[in-house]
Amino acid sequence: MPPGPVRALEWRGDHLALLDQRLLPHQTEWLRLETWTSVHDAIRDMAVRGAPAIGVAAAYGLALAAIHQNNLITAREALAASRPTAVNLVWALDRVMSLQDRSFESILAEAQAIEREDLAMNLKLAEHGASLVPPGSRVLTICNTGSLATAGHGTALGIIRTAFAQGKVVHVYSCETRPRQQGLRLTAWELLQDGIPFQSVADSAAASLMAQGRIDFVVVGADRIAANGDTANKIGTLSLAVLAHHFDVPFYVAAPSSTLDPSLVDGSNIPIEERDPTEITEIEGVRVAPDGCPVWNPGFDVTPGSLVTAIVTEVGVFRAPYLFN
Amino acid sequence: MPPGPVRALEWRGDHLALLDQRLLPHQTEWLRLETWTSVHDAIRDMAVRGAPAIGVAAAYGLALAAIHQNNLITAREALAASRPTAVNLVWALDRVMSLQDRSFESILAEAQAIEREDLAMNLKLAEHGASLVPPGSRVLTICNTGSLATAGHGTALGIIRTAFAQGKVVHVYSCETRPRQQGLRLTAWELLQDGIPFQSVADSAAASLMAQGRIDFVVVGADRIAANGDTANKIGTLSLAVLAHHFDVPFYVAAPSSTLDPSLVDGSNIPIEERDPTEITEIEGVRVAPDGCPVWNPGFDVTPGSLVTAIVTEVGVFRAPYLFN
Repeated sequence: MPPGPVRALEWRGDHLALLDQRLLPHQTEWLRLETWTSVHDAIRDMAVRGAPAIGVAAAYGLALAAIHQNNLITAREALAASRPTAVNLVWALDRVMSLQDRSFESILAEAQAIEREDLAMNLKLAEHGASLVPPGSRVLTICNTGSLATAGHGTALGIIRTAFAQGKVVHVYSCETRPRQQGLRLTAWELLQDGIPFQSVADSAAASLMAQGRIDFVVVGADRIAANGDTANKIGTLSLAVLAHHFDVPFYVAAPSSTLDPSLVDGSNIPIEERDPTEITEIEGVRVAPDGCPVWNPGFDVTPGSLVTAIVTEVGVFRAPYLFN
Repeated sequence: MPPGPVRALEWRGDHLALLDQRLLPHQTEWLRLETWTSVHDAIRDMAVRGAPAIGVAAAYGLALAAIHQNNLITAREALAASRPTAVNLVWALDRVMSLQDRSFESILAEAQAIEREDLAMNLKLAEHGASLVPPGSRVLTICNTGSLATAGHGTALGIIRTAFAQGKVVHVYSCETRPRQQGLRLTAWELLQDGIPFQSVADSAAASLMAQGRIDFVVVGADRIAANGDTANKIGTLSLAVLAHHFDVPFYVAAPSSTLDPSLVDGSNIPIEERDPTEITEIEGVRVAPDGCPVWNPGFDVTPGSLVTAIVTEVGVFRAPYLFN
């Protein structure tokens, strides 16, 4: 299945063009990034998001550093720190930095390979994932794990796309994904373009859907997976995993192998980003909470591998107990 | 413990003054309701909300019908249908309609008794609930169940208030409560006024709080409780109950006995209100979702009595298995 027309980013000769996802779905505006620092800021400020996509963007950031003959080590360190939770970022940077030849041409070729391979991995993992899906399935997902979150096709949403094309998925329920509403803004946008039947729901409605027998499986992406299958992903994922366990619904994690971090024996040491309180207190720039309202706003949670029915990668389908190395 | 200064409504001689909760916390505007139809619209449009508060408002609606010599049966039927899920509404209307003397004076006196008794019940149930709370407790709640949702003090928030005054509750986590954000707008507003330490969180962050051992108990309100303890409450409540069960956290429901509906053997026949899709697609009047985004937006869910550790009423504390009659 070929990737759709939606792309998160595009290398254009001497700069990186990046679709500003903060403005979607209402505005389609491409940022022109000419320096590694502008790539850093775009990742930090979430103009680009999604673990695989920020890995690709960071690799191009090093290509921009090479063009301008900036210190690659400085650029690498800063880019690696632009967001803490997703491991694909560090994986992509390390892959570029391990090159013997650190010329611009060589780094660019590596960044392009990372992008190309991410798309290929997604298409493969989508095939593996779709093999798990029975005909007539109704699926629940959270956040955006589609073309916008990757080099194309997507991870969890890639499985949904492929299974829909195979006639197996008949309906998608897409969690809004507070506080930044990537589900409501981005996944809904991608599903509408693909003509896949779906409904957006509040994150808190997932339990009712499962209780009413309306969900055949849950599939989510991942930002980092420890050796034992513990999975860091968008805040709200753990809730869906516990619900799926309670209501006996299969719960799948979809991620390319670049998301695996076997250096961590379990999820307890995955750094969890705490984000700005205004993500909760303001919505689309409009103040909702009373002045002085204190907030706790973690961007991610960690789902124990024991609650994950299967982890789907481009290499194949893994089942608990997990032991990645 | 005396009720705070916050009131949802106030009878003023010949009309009902109603605090417009849709404008909180940023504007404090009182509606002047002079007819039962304006009370009907205020309930339907959620200028007043919270099961006990809408029961009280509806009773005053009948007093307004009596002033204007409107047909009481017509008014009763329409008011009963203004929102479907909370049973307190029908309970209050039936109580007024069962009066032998249906003069304005008699109906007004009954409405005032319902209001007075609701406050008294809340103060009592708060005492019962607080007796369950160990010192040093950190509590999680959802939606608004405080003075704004009742005739005063509140149900779940009433327990938190009383337990805080007794030095037992040390911190509150308040779920935002999408889609209408009653937690972020109203509960935060009440907690700030009372000086109770708290943090607002996205609904989807509740699982992380419990997984990290930061919640000692959960307490929620109710819109209708069936004979077996099945509890209809704000969408998201079922999710918290399943999480509390999984993480071995006590889960309490707080409601005056007017919330019990023993005519229903279980929760399967509780009518669940489906609300306008724009509650999901727009926030504070700003469009978030792409055009054409389909939505499923139930206002409530049903938590099985088997997941409820205890139900706290003004009569006392009940524990599973429940058998109300």
